[in-house]
Amino acid sequence: MSERRTIGVALLGLGNVGGGVVKLLEDNAAAIEARLGARLEVRAIVVRDPDKANRVVDVDKSLLTTDMMAAINRPDVDIVCELMGGTTLAKEAVLAAIKAKRQVVTANKALLAEHWAELFTAAETAGVDVYYEAAVCGGVPIIRVLREGLASDRVESIHGIVNGTSNYILSTMTETRRPFAEILKEAQELGYAEADPTLDVGGGDAAHKLAILVNLCFGTIIDVNAIEKDGIDVVDPIDLSYAEKFGYVIKPLVIAREHGRAIEARVHPALVPSNWLLADVSGAKNAVYVQSYALGPSMYYGAGAGMLPTAMSVVSDMIEIARNMFARAGSQVPRPRPVESRPMVPVADLESSYYLRFGVHDQPGVLGQLMTILGSHAVSIAQVVQDGAPGRRDSDTPVWVVVLTHRAREGDVRNALAEIDALPIVRERARVIRIAG
Amino acid sequence: MSERRTIGVALLGLGNVGGGVVKLLEDNAAAIEARLGARLEVRAIVVRDPDKANRVVDVDKSLLTTDMMAAINRPDVDIVCELMGGTTLAKEAVLAAIKAKRQVVTANKALLAEHWAELFTAAETAGVDVYYEAAVCGGVPIIRVLREGLASDRVESIHGIVNGTSNYILSTMTETRRPFAEILKEAQELGYAEADPTLDVGGGDAAHKLAILVNLCFGTIIDVNAIEKDGIDVVDPIDLSYAEKFGYVIKPLVIAREHGRAIEARVHPALVPSNWLLADVSGAKNAVYVQSYALGPSMYYGAGAGMLPTAMSVVSDMIEIARNMFARAGSQVPRPRPVESRPMVPVADLESSYYLRFGVHDQPGVLGQLMTILGSHAVSIAQVVQDGAPGRRDSDTPVWVVVLTHRAREGDVRNALAEIDALPIVRERARVIRIAG
Repeated sequence: MSERRTIGVALLGLGNVGGGVVKLLEDNAAAIEARLGARLEVRAIVVRDPDKANRVVDVDKSLLTTDMMAAINRPDVDIVCELMGGTTLAKEAVLAAIKAKRQVVTANKALLAEHWAELFTAAETAGVDVYYEAAVCGGVPIIRVLREGLASDRVESIHGIVNGTSNYILSTMTETRRPFAEILKEAQELGYAEADPTLDVGGGDAAHKLAILVNLCFGTIIDVNAIEKDGIDVVDPIDLSYAEKFGYVIKPLVIAREHGRAIEARVHPALVPSNWLLADVSGAKNAVYVQSYALGPSMYYGAGAGMLPTAMSVVSDMIEIARNMFARAGSQVPRPRPVESRPMVPVADLESSYYLRFGVHDQPGVLGQLMTILGSHAVSIAQVVQDGAPGRRDSDTPVWVVVLTHRAREGDVRNALAEIDALPIVRERARVIRIAG
Repeated sequence: MSERRTIGVALLGLGNVGGGVVKLLEDNAAAIEARLGARLEVRAIVVRDPDKANRVVDVDKSLLTTDMMAAINRPDVDIVCELMGGTTLAKEAVLAAIKAKRQVVTANKALLAEHWAELFTAAETAGVDVYYEAAVCGGVPIIRVLREGLASDRVESIHGIVNGTSNYILSTMTETRRPFAEILKEAQELGYAEADPTLDVGGGDAAHKLAILVNLCFGTIIDVNAIEKDGIDVVDPIDLSYAEKFGYVIKPLVIAREHGRAIEARVHPALVPSNWLLADVSGAKNAVYVQSYALGPSMYYGAGAGMLPTAMSVVSDMIEIARNMFARAGSQVPRPRPVESRPMVPVADLESSYYLRFGVHDQPGVLGQLMTILGSHAVSIAQVVQDGAPGRRDSDTPVWVVVLTHRAREGDVRNALAEIDALPIVRERARVIRIAG
């Protein structure tokens, strides 16, 4: 289609990612035009306040508008790029764009995770693409890898570090052995963590991304709220020291695995063997380790957030959409992978090895009581360390007993811990961190 | 195009990869059909000897043929999959397939590296796709990542481990501190290395892959024979020990980097800082570490060889080609990235830090002489270790002086070494290994 050499873009939102898109389209304009054989041109930018000062990039003021629907419906707009976040106005915008037969790029993981079926059904009906590389792991092209690179393979499991803020905090805790609350406060002051950090450190953001990954890996939609989640605030510096002693580091993981028809999906900090590649993924970096039938293990690593890395994924999506537009006859879109309904493995039936830290009174027979109760719930022990010298009985701090278990059912572990936590010898509730592997 | 739901495939070659393709198409048939909305069906397999026993997979004998041109030209064949290797018959086959307007998948890095322009010009003229994910890093989808995932970015440099045999041998040498020749012999007996290992351990195979990566990263074709190559046989176990002492491991790298218009490209073992992710890529595994403008560092890791991993890339290519066929109007193919002619940085102008190991007579003033000569060639020293106690003057083994330099021009280093190697105090030619970073 040599007669058409410019693709028009409307940006909804001009925050960090939107600003990055504007900057990248300028900085790499020549490279993009050379590769695509066409220009990507921003024709409208929808913002709340066109007069706002101090934007992350300078833009031509005449592009700014508050009229979202008018921007979407401009006849010279081919691609609508939703970078507002949230799931209300963003959903309205994306559905309007699809209805107007605009191609869509979005970086909005919450929107995708919560409204997947509705969005993709609408897109298929309208015959348009919805691309979303930036929604998971920022600049790491994990969506393309799973959808196209591994198109002929069957994924068996994934282990991912997909929340940069959590990884930054846990990495810094590991380096400095300072407590969670302190590092979080610093991260907030430095702008690495949100004022309300719940979504990041509590696992909600990671759960959204995991839901998208599960869809691609296992062809099913899962309820984000049904994903088992633990925040990284369960980790104390002392746990990092014990983990190291046993040859592990603690990382904020998402894990998904197929069990026949059923899907296991969980988000929590986990002990990772220190010889795993994932153990070396530090700071705000992201990575996804995939185990698949034909390829075996593979890993994809890079910047999971940030203005330019995320914008890179958004603009690469635009390029692919533009290629599709040039190559396509009428309304034929690449057929999405079909989606079927599949059950999730109940949390109680999940299996893992566990790191358990018990705070107990230092008195004879304690270890025996703990071991007996664990054993009676079919939780078998791999290693035990009892800390503290004898004669500390009157100390204010509990004596720590740390246990690494063999693989056990989560339900059994929880029952055992409920029983143990009620013992008079226990000074502090047991701390539980799962072990990856 | 709902009227067409089967894509016909001709396989040229039924060795390890061809056998893997047949197996994967069977094992993952349901998943592939679900994702593509079509079946991939093998309709002919070209072999040298249809009666050969003990093939890697059982195939329907009626598919086997020795008539390559007839197989390519069958009206029910859409995709021709070249898995023969070599650059003579394979080239003829691929050009014939393109001319017959068949889509092409090839895993043949030598063919691509040596005949890139001819093949892709023919494909563009005919309006067909040539896909080649399996040609670099086996199952790791590095081609898609560079071509699509990072389509909006500008790559600044790559460091890759792309030859599994070399990485296996160096990893085993590092673990066991046994010499190269011994490990190579074992690897040959185990089938991990070819009877003629030159292409693998000498860097020729890696150079082919690097030429393809350079094309994708920097949009230019380079002469494979102009790539600076050192084999891994320059590495002695003692170098691995010194490297470790300085905080490095030695890895078989390919390196490419942009210097304005000019391209640096080289293949050699290199000291890699042990805190780099690449330092943990061991055994026969491959990885490519990419530094790009917007994304920053990213890494892609997995099986670089093997029957099923390589077949996985081949079949994923078939799926993408089939999707293109369904989506495409007539003869419009995705426009390939344009290719321009760019100069290569002359070897003498390459810059690096260097590990230098000198075998000298143990006599006073030796160190001074070495340092003076290096300094006179503008080679500045970062660290020096002199091994061996005094009084070993009559020993049969030389005394080792190991030097880590700051960044220096390769030409300067070579001139300095030529001068040093001619000194009477020198018992053995200097060993040179570049340092990555």
